[in-house]
Amino acid sequence: MNSTIKLIGSLALLSPVIHQTAAKKPNIIFFLVDDYGWADSQVLYDGVQYDNNKRFHTPNMQKLADMGVRFSHAYACPVSTPTRTSMMSGMNAVRSHITNWTSMAKDEPSDAVGGANGAAIYQEKDEDVFRRPDWNINGISPVEGVASTQHVTPMVRLLRDAGYYTIHVGKAHWASAGTPGSTPYNMGFIVNVCGNNAGLPRSYRGTDNFGNTSELWNMSAVQDLTQYYGQNIFLTEAITQEALKMLDYPVSQNKPFYLYMSHFATHTPIQKDKRFFDYYADMGQDDGQSKYASMVEGVDKSLGDILDYLQKKNIADNTIIIFMADNGGNADVKAKGGILHKQNGPLREGKGSCYDGGIRVPMSVYWPGKVAGGTQIDTPVMPEDLFPTILGMAGVKNYNTVQEIDGKNLYRLIIDGSKYVARTNNRMVPEALSGINPQREVMFHYPHQWKVSYKPEVDFLSTLIVGDWKLVYVMMNAVEGQHVDPSNGMIPETAYNTSSIPGIKSGALELYNIKEDIGETRNVAASHPGKVKELARMMSERLRTNKASMPIVRATGKPVPMPDELL
Amino acid sequence: MNSTIKLIGSLALLSPVIHQTAAKKPNIIFFLVDDYGWADSQVLYDGVQYDNNKRFHTPNMQKLADMGVRFSHAYACPVSTPTRTSMMSGMNAVRSHITNWTSMAKDEPSDAVGGANGAAIYQEKDEDVFRRPDWNINGISPVEGVASTQHVTPMVRLLRDAGYYTIHVGKAHWASAGTPGSTPYNMGFIVNVCGNNAGLPRSYRGTDNFGNTSELWNMSAVQDLTQYYGQNIFLTEAITQEALKMLDYPVSQNKPFYLYMSHFATHTPIQKDKRFFDYYADMGQDDGQSKYASMVEGVDKSLGDILDYLQKKNIADNTIIIFMADNGGNADVKAKGGILHKQNGPLREGKGSCYDGGIRVPMSVYWPGKVAGGTQIDTPVMPEDLFPTILGMAGVKNYNTVQEIDGKNLYRLIIDGSKYVARTNNRMVPEALSGINPQREVMFHYPHQWKVSYKPEVDFLSTLIVGDWKLVYVMMNAVEGQHVDPSNGMIPETAYNTSSIPGIKSGALELYNIKEDIGETRNVAASHPGKVKELARMMSERLRTNKASMPIVRATGKPVPMPDELL
Repeated sequence: MNSTIKLIGSLALLSPVIHQTAAKKPNIIFFLVDDYGWADSQVLYDGVQYDNNKRFHTPNMQKLADMGVRFSHAYACPVSTPTRTSMMSGMNAVRSHITNWTSMAKDEPSDAVGGANGAAIYQEKDEDVFRRPDWNINGISPVEGVASTQHVTPMVRLLRDAGYYTIHVGKAHWASAGTPGSTPYNMGFIVNVCGNNAGLPRSYRGTDNFGNTSELWNMSAVQDLTQYYGQNIFLTEAITQEALKMLDYPVSQNKPFYLYMSHFATHTPIQKDKRFFDYYADMGQDDGQSKYASMVEGVDKSLGDILDYLQKKNIADNTIIIFMADNGGNADVKAKGGILHKQNGPLREGKGSCYDGGIRVPMSVYWPGKVAGGTQIDTPVMPEDLFPTILGMAGVKNYNTVQEIDGKNLYRLIIDGSKYVARTNNRMVPEALSGINPQREVMFHYPHQWKVSYKPEVDFLSTLIVGDWKLVYVMMNAVEGQHVDPSNGMIPETAYNTSSIPGIKSGALELYNIKEDIGETRNVAASHPGKVKELARMMSERLRTNKASMPIVRATGKPVPMPDELL
Repeated sequence: MNSTIKLIGSLALLSPVIHQTAAKKPNIIFFLVDDYGWADSQVLYDGVQYDNNKRFHTPNMQKLADMGVRFSHAYACPVSTPTRTSMMSGMNAVRSHITNWTSMAKDEPSDAVGGANGAAIYQEKDEDVFRRPDWNINGISPVEGVASTQHVTPMVRLLRDAGYYTIHVGKAHWASAGTPGSTPYNMGFIVNVCGNNAGLPRSYRGTDNFGNTSELWNMSAVQDLTQYYGQNIFLTEAITQEALKMLDYPVSQNKPFYLYMSHFATHTPIQKDKRFFDYYADMGQDDGQSKYASMVEGVDKSLGDILDYLQKKNIADNTIIIFMADNGGNADVKAKGGILHKQNGPLREGKGSCYDGGIRVPMSVYWPGKVAGGTQIDTPVMPEDLFPTILGMAGVKNYNTVQEIDGKNLYRLIIDGSKYVARTNNRMVPEALSGINPQREVMFHYPHQWKVSYKPEVDFLSTLIVGDWKLVYVMMNAVEGQHVDPSNGMIPETAYNTSSIPGIKSGALELYNIKEDIGETRNVAASHPGKVKELARMMSERLRTNKASMPIVRATGKPVPMPDELL
């Protein structure tokens, strides 16, 4: 009998029991929204209701937050590509040297190009104070030796190699055309719908063929959706339908899947999603805001459709959804209505900026049975954390990567942390429990000019956040002969402007207490010189260690000073 | 012990042994070449070397034919879409009413539009003799109720449902944009690279972004290949590399796969594949022919790369390759050099025509261990046969389809037939052995004007082939007051022209013996009135039974007569 039992045992080892166990790996859906503001939903990510929260109807985002854990201090890079490459690589953008969006075609720096076309090429102008920094203008590459790229082992490839069925739907934007990183197929995705080098669609309208008309076309026209051409369908809906179709295969095969549901919305162009527009217009919101809100609700409906699909397929209990935005809401787009630079309240500024409007983003994690629902965690998290976190959720261990990983695995923070919050009502999860220091350094670096005209609240900024304190380095103000007057955004022809803080050039280093002053309205650098110095040294250390990309001062030919050189 | 053995037995039923058995289903690669002439390779499909055969270097096509079985009388529809929809549906084009190529956007008939743009819309002109027929201008649809489509159960969906991992790479062209049939994802493909509504690329050059430039772009610009933009790579090579990449997943999973490797080459634009051009130019071939031959050799290299991949992965022995063209070589394109209308020798005319140049195509089937290599079968085969044949190869049985299937399963013809040929040297396989009647009716119907100016050797033709006899119905010659003079292609202002055959209007019904006269140079209708009548009645029967699309005579408002009405 003994040998028979052994035989059964060995058969069992190879039997479908094993397959079933393998299939119990959770499905993971990364639901990413583009240029989407922190307070632009019903969800109160820090528990407070702001004016913007009242202007949106997002029941599914609310449902997700109610069933999952929300993060009050989720951060992202100020523009699209760096956030996306940080997720895919696990690297902070300071290290990867991918600090700006990648332009459509390779070897064309996007610095100060502005506009949506991507065809323009950087040109230094006589009036420029800075020369653009040297950065990895072509994005990440899964292959070694591609010029101006950071070579990485993509997170999704590791997932696929671990048995995940990996699906890309929507916007990719990790790299420029002409490089391997521009296609999801090279990143480890088994299936791709739409994803490529483009960072936005030319149109959300099926009746515009999503940009594929001779009038609208450029490389941003959305690919792979011909069946919807000429039809009265919004892009958000079309790619949701495609995503659900793509899920059928792994679900039928009982394979764990990773769906990267990467919406183009709510990026420009701001267009009316007719299904939802009237609700907001009837409420008395202006035309632009009603359009934007209709796009947001389209995304909310997409999330709801995915939740419904999971229920229908009876896999909701074994599926994680991570909901997030790739950067702050755009606060510099007339088509959104309202007041420019104030569109992203309660936060200061928006996309492109290192003020919180550019980098603080909505984030919720849904994981039935694992996460204590309706909880809020205040520990700050960053895009590079998603690399180890998603691999951790998938049970992928002992992987090798060519790059050094900056991100932290948030697994325990999410699981044990949400339960701790539910139990104690204390939203600051101790490091001993989660492995994540609530006082960890959060750093973003934008040594670029975003658009053609200089915007002092957006361009050439870096930030370092530690706990409630936030340092903002205004690089322009560190240049001899330059000083930005924040009251009007002009660069006056003033002489070198010494600071009221001994040893700190005026306005170059700003300090905010973001707990007490969420809108970053009060620069308290002058009254907290010690904190300024402490954070400036930490920031400088990070910049030096990573040989960070720094703008070059044209007048001197030298890089802009490190913040601690200003002390 | 007895119950233990039962337990082992039931475990074994569920064990990986079963999975392995399932994995022994053969992989199937359908390798389709576009607008590719019957004699444009080293391979002698009927065992005879023609002048064209001497002008091409295609060692891999030769290798495939040497290891597999070649068909001397493989036929396809005269243009792209009907062949592709016949394969996908199993329907003859007379029945599906998809007799012409589908234009880029839905509801735009391609009749007489000509040109590559696809943006032009059919307009009846005063000088037109015919009004365009009513046909399914939007192609096939996997969904019911789509206007101007034939609703079908796609062959690939049945393959996928039977466990095949289905991959589409290259040109699709089953349906117009704005309809579900325009995307391979709706046809049962799990993965798609490039396939959509487009029937040709705007450029084969990576340096042209395969048409994705503001100068070149229209909807024919190739999608999904951004990583090659700006690079010195030919489209044929790029999609081959993509195809091999897509194969890695099913191979790693030990899943049987179906790869539809659908080359854009050798469709227009005729462009130089630099890797191969010089060989032909140095041989003294003219520039156009050297370009075309370089494109052909690019396809040959693609086939070789696939064969190498199968060897490397150790799956060659369990992989079928079906090599075929979608219609005859284009004989009406200046860029190919040589003499227009004679480019496709030894056959008469080319693409678009129901003379053999338009419909006779190269075809080989490679299936190691199953097929007797180096054999030639003379039984005629048609695109609709591929539907039951591929499902038969895959072991898919008892499937249901919404459409009626015209095609025949060639499985026994290929397997038993090739062995019979090897054994007997008789290339005409008996029906008792193969299930296929060597005298079966082969019918193609082109009730359309292909390009903007009327071409008598191409437009408004039908053909029925039975054995060595071929009837061609020249519809224009059946119209009162019209008669085409084949010597100059003009439509003289002649009165109604009675035939020298009593009861047959002159020139409307032509008869050829294609065994004795491969170039269809001798119309023997006058000397074989009985055969003309026999075939005309068979053709009429097919047209009536299927309520075939027929051009409307504008002068009378009535459809062109059935061929037997001319008798």
